[in-house]
Amino acid sequence: MNEEKKIPYKIYLEEDEMPKQWYNVRADMKNKPAPLLHPQTFKPVTLEDLSEVFCEELAKQELDETTPYIDIPQEIQDFYKMYRPSPLVRAYCLEKALDTPAKIYYKFEGNNTSGSHKLNSAIAQAYYAKQQGLKGVTTETGAGQWGTALSMACAYFGLDCEVFMVKCSYEQKPFRREVMRTYGANVTPSPSMETAVGRKINEEFPGTSGSLGCAISEAVEAAASKEGYRYVLGSVLSQVLLHQTVIGLETKAALDKYDIKPDIIIGCAGGGSNLGGLISPFVGEMLRGEADYQIIAVEPKSCPSLTRGKYAYDYCDTGKVCPLQKMYTLGNGFIPSASHAGGLRYHGMSATLSQLYDDGYIQATSVEQTSVFAAAQQFAKVEGILPAPESSHAIRVAIDEAMKCKETGEEKTIVFGLTGTGYFDMVSYKRFNDGEMGDYIPTEEDLAKGFASLPYIE
Amino acid sequence: MNEEKKIPYKIYLEEDEMPKQWYNVRADMKNKPAPLLHPQTFKPVTLEDLSEVFCEELAKQELDETTPYIDIPQEIQDFYKMYRPSPLVRAYCLEKALDTPAKIYYKFEGNNTSGSHKLNSAIAQAYYAKQQGLKGVTTETGAGQWGTALSMACAYFGLDCEVFMVKCSYEQKPFRREVMRTYGANVTPSPSMETAVGRKINEEFPGTSGSLGCAISEAVEAAASKEGYRYVLGSVLSQVLLHQTVIGLETKAALDKYDIKPDIIIGCAGGGSNLGGLISPFVGEMLRGEADYQIIAVEPKSCPSLTRGKYAYDYCDTGKVCPLQKMYTLGNGFIPSASHAGGLRYHGMSATLSQLYDDGYIQATSVEQTSVFAAAQQFAKVEGILPAPESSHAIRVAIDEAMKCKETGEEKTIVFGLTGTGYFDMVSYKRFNDGEMGDYIPTEEDLAKGFASLPYIE
Repeated sequence: MNEEKKIPYKIYLEEDEMPKQWYNVRADMKNKPAPLLHPQTFKPVTLEDLSEVFCEELAKQELDETTPYIDIPQEIQDFYKMYRPSPLVRAYCLEKALDTPAKIYYKFEGNNTSGSHKLNSAIAQAYYAKQQGLKGVTTETGAGQWGTALSMACAYFGLDCEVFMVKCSYEQKPFRREVMRTYGANVTPSPSMETAVGRKINEEFPGTSGSLGCAISEAVEAAASKEGYRYVLGSVLSQVLLHQTVIGLETKAALDKYDIKPDIIIGCAGGGSNLGGLISPFVGEMLRGEADYQIIAVEPKSCPSLTRGKYAYDYCDTGKVCPLQKMYTLGNGFIPSASHAGGLRYHGMSATLSQLYDDGYIQATSVEQTSVFAAAQQFAKVEGILPAPESSHAIRVAIDEAMKCKETGEEKTIVFGLTGTGYFDMVSYKRFNDGEMGDYIPTEEDLAKGFASLPYIE
Repeated sequence: MNEEKKIPYKIYLEEDEMPKQWYNVRADMKNKPAPLLHPQTFKPVTLEDLSEVFCEELAKQELDETTPYIDIPQEIQDFYKMYRPSPLVRAYCLEKALDTPAKIYYKFEGNNTSGSHKLNSAIAQAYYAKQQGLKGVTTETGAGQWGTALSMACAYFGLDCEVFMVKCSYEQKPFRREVMRTYGANVTPSPSMETAVGRKINEEFPGTSGSLGCAISEAVEAAASKEGYRYVLGSVLSQVLLHQTVIGLETKAALDKYDIKPDIIIGCAGGGSNLGGLISPFVGEMLRGEADYQIIAVEPKSCPSLTRGKYAYDYCDTGKVCPLQKMYTLGNGFIPSASHAGGLRYHGMSATLSQLYDDGYIQATSVEQTSVFAAAQQFAKVEGILPAPESSHAIRVAIDEAMKCKETGEEKTIVFGLTGTGYFDMVSYKRFNDGEMGDYIPTEEDLAKGFASLPYIE
């Protein structure tokens, strides 16, 4: 310890050490993600196409594959200062409880009212919508964290906010809706009867508990049908990964401050916003040949797009109104079971992450729900924080890796993303506490049904 | 601005700047709080008396009126490092929204899973219980924050935890119970049929929604009836105020770091744990003649112990099993309405704060529930954080004071305690959002009934 700096329990950056630019990892990728395709023509989308759906500045960011660093507007930096920097926490107590030689760190994004990292992109998207003079935005939400984040961002800039919330989350999390309402948003369970696509899905799958892919279609339709509205999305898109790099940039700056080099970086993966944001600066180093890391994406066994999906062009939504992207996907027709990690119930994966995975920069693993909640409870008891089910996927694998270190005696440094808190997930925790939680693993037949919905693109 | 240090949005202390001792304000008080009296003999309690109810070390702290600084044991300091220092936030966005020349700061204690400052004392009390070799502890909880905090602390030290939760909160906050269960605690709605005092209260007041005073009696009885258990309390007591001074000490250190001198310090007041913890170091300066501040205690109009109570000896609990203390009280028989600020539904006030109030060091004001929620929503929209109803009492008055500055043009510096988050208060927010929230102000007759329960002590 003589020469080593003592690592505090929590590493906070100073305000002037916070990132002033987002990092666009695509600029350093030799194999770029395949272009988005227009949902009718199957031709690469143009800026004009995208600007019908998204704010213009965001459409530009979506298509920009060459600018490595993009300035964060001052107003967004100022908003970030209200709840960022988030702490990089040294999990001393977890290490002690596991009796592992591994050094465990987590970047904790839950200390804001949205309860997750989602606010990082919500405030950016609301800002650009406001700049463009829009009246409001529409969106979907799964676990409810993105919807809450967007409600907060819209309240801040005085924008109208309409949220389509996946029905099973809407029912499991009645209070999430109330938070959004407190911030002035309208919340509708999806699939609803308020859009054509919602009515169609309700007809085809009566009693469906909904999915992110389906809620996206509804929100896109709702935006298109109103003057002065655009659609915004909380994950999957390259623009979202871009905004979320504030997580990875802060993490890297905090580690660098104490000369810490991680061996393993772990994140949960639904659409990829958290994982992409966390790992981008590290993958950038790998892409430029400057460093090497073991990067692990963790997904639920119930919705295993990376570990059991196909790398193919697919629609981003169930209603097929959004552009197609090449990604690891279970098929837009795949409707995941009502797993409790609502934020991970998406059929596909960010195109950027899909390409990085295909190129071998990222590993992926999938875990069962009950083992995830067991890890969550273990973590809560020693580290104090009650984690979100989504985030707990990363905890599960971080603990597993730390236990491997105990076997081998290796002193690996493990960093994982703790994306949020589980305060609105108590229905799920109750099921776990009562011993009534089950696991669900799709059969080959289930997967085949999903794959059958993939469009044929040569 | 030339020579002034730029104040960041959030002031964090470094780990080595965190307090290593608690401050015992009683040591600097010329007029000490009147001694606690034994509930049967009405004689001042001895250490022996108190040690039957509380852990011995805590009983000592309860009676210590002379030691100004008490060391924080290293294990408690280490636990503090997991979730502290809490930020002192400059409310730039609120200032802008109010267009006030006032400078507003808040000490935010909600960034931990208990959702409030309660963890500061819970971990200390659990530590001393563990040190004494106890099996477990019993307690009461109103809003649920104290019960959650104690559950977390007990899980950390491997102690059994039994919580009596005020019935109206138990019903309004089903998920609170689940958080406590996740941490391994047993939770019982109070008044229950499991204790003699609970059965008696249920018989006398059928259908009562309970109160803190009543839940305290049940928890004390439950502890006394079990080998190896002691009772712990989350507010009111001098030991709790002592532990909570970590709030005020951090606040003062953070202000000093930037040469900021507050004019007004505001805190909500139920039993007094937050307010006492926040103001103690500042009041200490006043007591020693080193500085002067305007200190405002804010209580709900529905439970106005300081503003409409009597300064008299009273039982700390409804069942009259606890010692009596001299305090501002509405009478132990006062059962407050089912106001939504569960944490402020206590008939009395900390003896230390009562004495300071009586001596003129503290002012007090009371506010109506609907105006509190309006302030909460306004705050949430501009500062991001959705506050607890209890904390929002302080927000209400901070905004009011800032608006007075706007009238007069004074650039006062206002500091308030933001004790916690409202994530488990969405039933109340829903009522507010739906326009269905009312206000309740006790009549003189209501108060007279409460006062009738005061014991006669010459």
